[in-house]
Amino acid sequence: MCGIFAYLNFYVSRERRYILEVLFNGLRRLEYRGYDSAGISIDSSFTAVSDSSLGPPLLVFRQEGNIDSLVKSVYQKVDETSLNLEESFLVHAGIAHTRWATHGEPAPRNSHPQTSDAEHQFLVVHNGVITNYEVLKETLVRHGFTFESETDTEVIPKLAQFVFDNANEEDQSANYSAFGVGDKGVTFSQVVLEVMRQLEGAYALIFKSRHYPNELIACKRGSPLLLGVKESVETEQRPSFNDSTLPLSNGQPKEFFLSSDASALVEHTKKVLVIEDDEVVHLKDGGASIFKFDRSKGRCNGTLTRPPSVQRALSVLEMEVEQINKGKYKHYMQKEIHEQPESLKTTMRGRLISGRSFKAKSVLLGGIKAHLKTIRRSRRIVFIGCGTSYNAALAARPILEELSGIPVTMEIASDLLDREGPIYREDTAVFVSQSGETADTLQALHYALENGALCVGITNTVGSAIARNTHCGVHINAGCEIGVASTKAYTSQIVVMAMLALAIGDDTISSQARRDAIIDGLCALPSKVKEVLKLDEEMKDLAKLLIAEQSLLVFGRGYNYATALEGALKVKEVSLMHSEGILAGEMKHGPLALVDETLPIVVIATRDGCFSKQQSVIQQLHARKGRLIVMCTEGDAASVCVGGSSRVVEVPRVEDCLQPVINAVPLQLLAYHLTVLRGYNVDQPRNLAKSVTTQ
Amino acid sequence: MCGIFAYLNFYVSRERRYILEVLFNGLRRLEYRGYDSAGISIDSSFTAVSDSSLGPPLLVFRQEGNIDSLVKSVYQKVDETSLNLEESFLVHAGIAHTRWATHGEPAPRNSHPQTSDAEHQFLVVHNGVITNYEVLKETLVRHGFTFESETDTEVIPKLAQFVFDNANEEDQSANYSAFGVGDKGVTFSQVVLEVMRQLEGAYALIFKSRHYPNELIACKRGSPLLLGVKESVETEQRPSFNDSTLPLSNGQPKEFFLSSDASALVEHTKKVLVIEDDEVVHLKDGGASIFKFDRSKGRCNGTLTRPPSVQRALSVLEMEVEQINKGKYKHYMQKEIHEQPESLKTTMRGRLISGRSFKAKSVLLGGIKAHLKTIRRSRRIVFIGCGTSYNAALAARPILEELSGIPVTMEIASDLLDREGPIYREDTAVFVSQSGETADTLQALHYALENGALCVGITNTVGSAIARNTHCGVHINAGCEIGVASTKAYTSQIVVMAMLALAIGDDTISSQARRDAIIDGLCALPSKVKEVLKLDEEMKDLAKLLIAEQSLLVFGRGYNYATALEGALKVKEVSLMHSEGILAGEMKHGPLALVDETLPIVVIATRDGCFSKQQSVIQQLHARKGRLIVMCTEGDAASVCVGGSSRVVEVPRVEDCLQPVINAVPLQLLAYHLTVLRGYNVDQPRNLAKSVTTQ
Repeated sequence: MCGIFAYLNFYVSRERRYILEVLFNGLRRLEYRGYDSAGISIDSSFTAVSDSSLGPPLLVFRQEGNIDSLVKSVYQKVDETSLNLEESFLVHAGIAHTRWATHGEPAPRNSHPQTSDAEHQFLVVHNGVITNYEVLKETLVRHGFTFESETDTEVIPKLAQFVFDNANEEDQSANYSAFGVGDKGVTFSQVVLEVMRQLEGAYALIFKSRHYPNELIACKRGSPLLLGVKESVETEQRPSFNDSTLPLSNGQPKEFFLSSDASALVEHTKKVLVIEDDEVVHLKDGGASIFKFDRSKGRCNGTLTRPPSVQRALSVLEMEVEQINKGKYKHYMQKEIHEQPESLKTTMRGRLISGRSFKAKSVLLGGIKAHLKTIRRSRRIVFIGCGTSYNAALAARPILEELSGIPVTMEIASDLLDREGPIYREDTAVFVSQSGETADTLQALHYALENGALCVGITNTVGSAIARNTHCGVHINAGCEIGVASTKAYTSQIVVMAMLALAIGDDTISSQARRDAIIDGLCALPSKVKEVLKLDEEMKDLAKLLIAEQSLLVFGRGYNYATALEGALKVKEVSLMHSEGILAGEMKHGPLALVDETLPIVVIATRDGCFSKQQSVIQQLHARKGRLIVMCTEGDAASVCVGGSSRVVEVPRVEDCLQPVINAVPLQLLAYHLTVLRGYNVDQPRNLAKSVTTQ
Repeated sequence: MCGIFAYLNFYVSRERRYILEVLFNGLRRLEYRGYDSAGISIDSSFTAVSDSSLGPPLLVFRQEGNIDSLVKSVYQKVDETSLNLEESFLVHAGIAHTRWATHGEPAPRNSHPQTSDAEHQFLVVHNGVITNYEVLKETLVRHGFTFESETDTEVIPKLAQFVFDNANEEDQSANYSAFGVGDKGVTFSQVVLEVMRQLEGAYALIFKSRHYPNELIACKRGSPLLLGVKESVETEQRPSFNDSTLPLSNGQPKEFFLSSDASALVEHTKKVLVIEDDEVVHLKDGGASIFKFDRSKGRCNGTLTRPPSVQRALSVLEMEVEQINKGKYKHYMQKEIHEQPESLKTTMRGRLISGRSFKAKSVLLGGIKAHLKTIRRSRRIVFIGCGTSYNAALAARPILEELSGIPVTMEIASDLLDREGPIYREDTAVFVSQSGETADTLQALHYALENGALCVGITNTVGSAIARNTHCGVHINAGCEIGVASTKAYTSQIVVMAMLALAIGDDTISSQARRDAIIDGLCALPSKVKEVLKLDEEMKDLAKLLIAEQSLLVFGRGYNYATALEGALKVKEVSLMHSEGILAGEMKHGPLALVDETLPIVVIATRDGCFSKQQSVIQQLHARKGRLIVMCTEGDAASVCVGGSSRVVEVPRVEDCLQPVINAVPLQLLAYHLTVLRGYNVDQPRNLAKSVTTQ
């Protein structure tokens, strides 16, 4: 949901063309977060400004459509205005934004950067939603501001302008130097801190201002934001971020990057700082000062105060550039489907204890080890997630119930919040989110924390909000996932939750044999997934048959109820076909009415305890002349193929509770090929965005 | 799921034409249970039989299609064979069946009665599924039987034949009279008891045999079956059913009816007996003997034994003939939608205590009063249901959570069974089923009983299996519902569960005001429903616009998540349009990809705590140019209609937790009109049947 990016080069001379390309490239990496419009701002060449306190005029480019249309339009403008792309800047601050529209349709006026006025005194790029923007807008309109967009964001630069103007008026009528503000009036960070005081909702913001040339301010609450630092001369010692020990003091050239996530940083630097909620990062004079926003401390004697700066150490990204390239594949989704044998291996690495020499087979999940006893005593385990993450939890639910004996309740995060459902101290709440930043899941986490539940996080993103705010958790380690439709994260999430079930049930003797079988199954899983990936061509052929269909139903039950939901979701997300996952047991209670000779129906009928029931479902669908595509276990084609008229997809058999991992793959492939054949953009499905960081 | 019917007249002279019409009419009443094929069997006129032990040859008529096609084909055959319709029978036994295909496509050979052989020595009509039919078939084939259908049922008459033949062989080689069998060999009920011993699965069966002319046997396990008795001379005294006190002894003329449910009996008699699982009813010589099947007692010394008969009293049906007629309406569904103001009144009658003169307002549910304390101490409340009943429970979930503070878990009955999910003694399991016979829900009830949970039933059918087998419960008293798509039962179920929530929360002081408001809301509900029914024409106009659409999405959240699911289910069931109910909070996690200018989307955005979130959903759908139909509270059109381009349906406002009752009505009307306009059969939607009594 929107990506924001910024690039500040300090005493590293860069041509305008280079700066533009860094910004464009950053946006391309973030494009999966939103792609219905985009924009950037850089400095113009005009250095001889009439008002000496103002920097050069700012250039703002905004365009409807994806990044490529932005790039095209920027170079077109550059041509028209004969802007010198070779001009070099020793210091320069640029900001950029790619949008997933929430308020106002995709259009240049609704794109970011949003601005304070025609002079662009303050510019803002924003990821999130400001919930009180209507009230703020009213106030600002009363003070003479004119709004030109339908966005919630526009109030932010205008509010900054308002705060700035007021502070300077006060400064002129008071002995401001006594308050430590200095000769130049209020600082950029003071303005932003005051703006933050007025904002409600979720946001990650980057500010650029003509009043503070070559400076940038970043701040966040709710939405994710990272700072990357690249030093031209490598130093062994980790820099610490503090006003007094600014790296500037040793005059070192430096490049700063701000980004919604790590994928846009990794090609530049691996030294990053995950900015936390209510932190304000001020990039100035080659240093980064970090302030903690404190709502309780307001204006002091009517003047803006400056909170003390905090020290933070940089951490090192564990991401490789290859992870964010497509390699030999045409699309990220394709790449991520095919790298599942590897991503599953990484997910399980170091966590399965194979039990050689008299030791029992077991599972080691360091992140939750200390809490297992508490979890085992829970009244309920509540799985909370959205979309694909919810489906993954649903797939793991039966085995968790079986091995723990604890009732597992499923909650779609937004529904739990809408209902304000009961969550208590005796509950263990498990939060599942690939990005670890999903707004609904995150808010449900806060709700569960308030209600005293033990909170467990399952995410793919180290340092994400959910990883930081839960009591304990497990990283799925699937590697960076860029395709908007989640594939490898889904299978890794199931595997992690199956391991969670094994860990919770670890102390039960009666299920030892079952657990051993599952652990063996886990070990064999990557090679089985490699096997099922060989269905690629077969699924492509199937996709060719379905290319013109309007609707698709997917029936599953038991362990594979989730597979039906997830398969249908994949098809719906990327191929834009109205597909629906249906619990096979509910067939007779309505959906059967839709069945005729034309509607394609996928039935998942691999071997498990529900197999005979699924055979009966197939018979009944067949009696209604349904057009069936049956997924079954290798060798079962004859048992599921009534009268030989159905199309059959055979998959390798694994332990029943792990079968959803195998079964998901052909449906992922089907969704992928269907989309490519129908001519849609696989990696950027219409209207969607990856991590949904707004409610 | 299949309807079975039989008519036996004893010393009440009836012409063949009359007998046929009674059978056809019985089937018409049961037609909503299945309508893809039908069949009947009556006696032929040939009385001079060569083998004196055999009755007259039996006539069997079977036809694909609905009852009307059967009737047409029977009268055509009658013409061709010059069968005398005026011939009178002093005693005659006829059986009939209307089918919802499970095994084998609709075709005469797969229709019932199924037969033992070309001579029709044994005929059977069956509602249910025999799960071990493949094993039985193999055995019978080895013994020389030839099968002509794909049904599971065909094994039953053939098994009866096999048992009969074997028993007679034994009789010929033994002094059978010593075993009390009598001169005539085995009795009809002995044969059936032995057949039952071999059958696994669910069934209600009626047997007719040439060996036992003018006799019928009915038995059941799992599927419902009722016996109706009409005596020509009314007696004050209730007859009891016992071998020794057979009404025959006083030579009274009598008519017997057997039927899958009461709707086919009420026009003939109100004196009924609800046959219980494992009971065998033998109609013979004007009496009804009832035997209890006991699996533990098998054959005695190789000879068939006869269990002792049991005494049962008749009960009186509380149904009126008007309930099963359409009155001024064209379809049952239409009638049932429009009678909701009355059905809701009946549901609440005597249960709301308005609290005049110092007494607090409260709710009285006699059926659960004694168990309230236990329910309040539950660890969880688990709602279990299928289809519409599940949706009704989902609609009531938030208010039950709010007033009880107990976590409410939702379980689709078949999914609970597939997973064998944890249910414990501290759980209260609430089973919701209109018919009280839904196979999945019933089996889940047995599962919960085994696991020691307190089981509460919520059904519309007094004496149904769920009503009989739960610890306590509430009847919804919505009156007989005949339309396959449930409408008035849905709204009455919600109201009953809201009253359940009020009763459970009755002891909490802090929610007194809230409870009072809900009770006031309940009192006003019938008149508000009457108001919302005025939207009939408006929904018809809307249906006209949607007539050619392939897909429809319905978005709801909070209290109205269930409304979205139920509205979509109604449209799916009867109008055969692929409609899907979607939790609005999940929109951004996939479904939004489907949104464009053409796909119609219903958004439910009536006033409650989620209203502002739904406004934001509308804005986002609007930003994607979605084609919206917004349901909002009266007077809210402007607040939900961004840019004036959406179609708006305004409904009256009631207490938030009761709003789903109001909001369901326009969607029921929409589904109804859509179906009629599209030219489909509203009351008999394709492939579906009412009470789903097979798994």
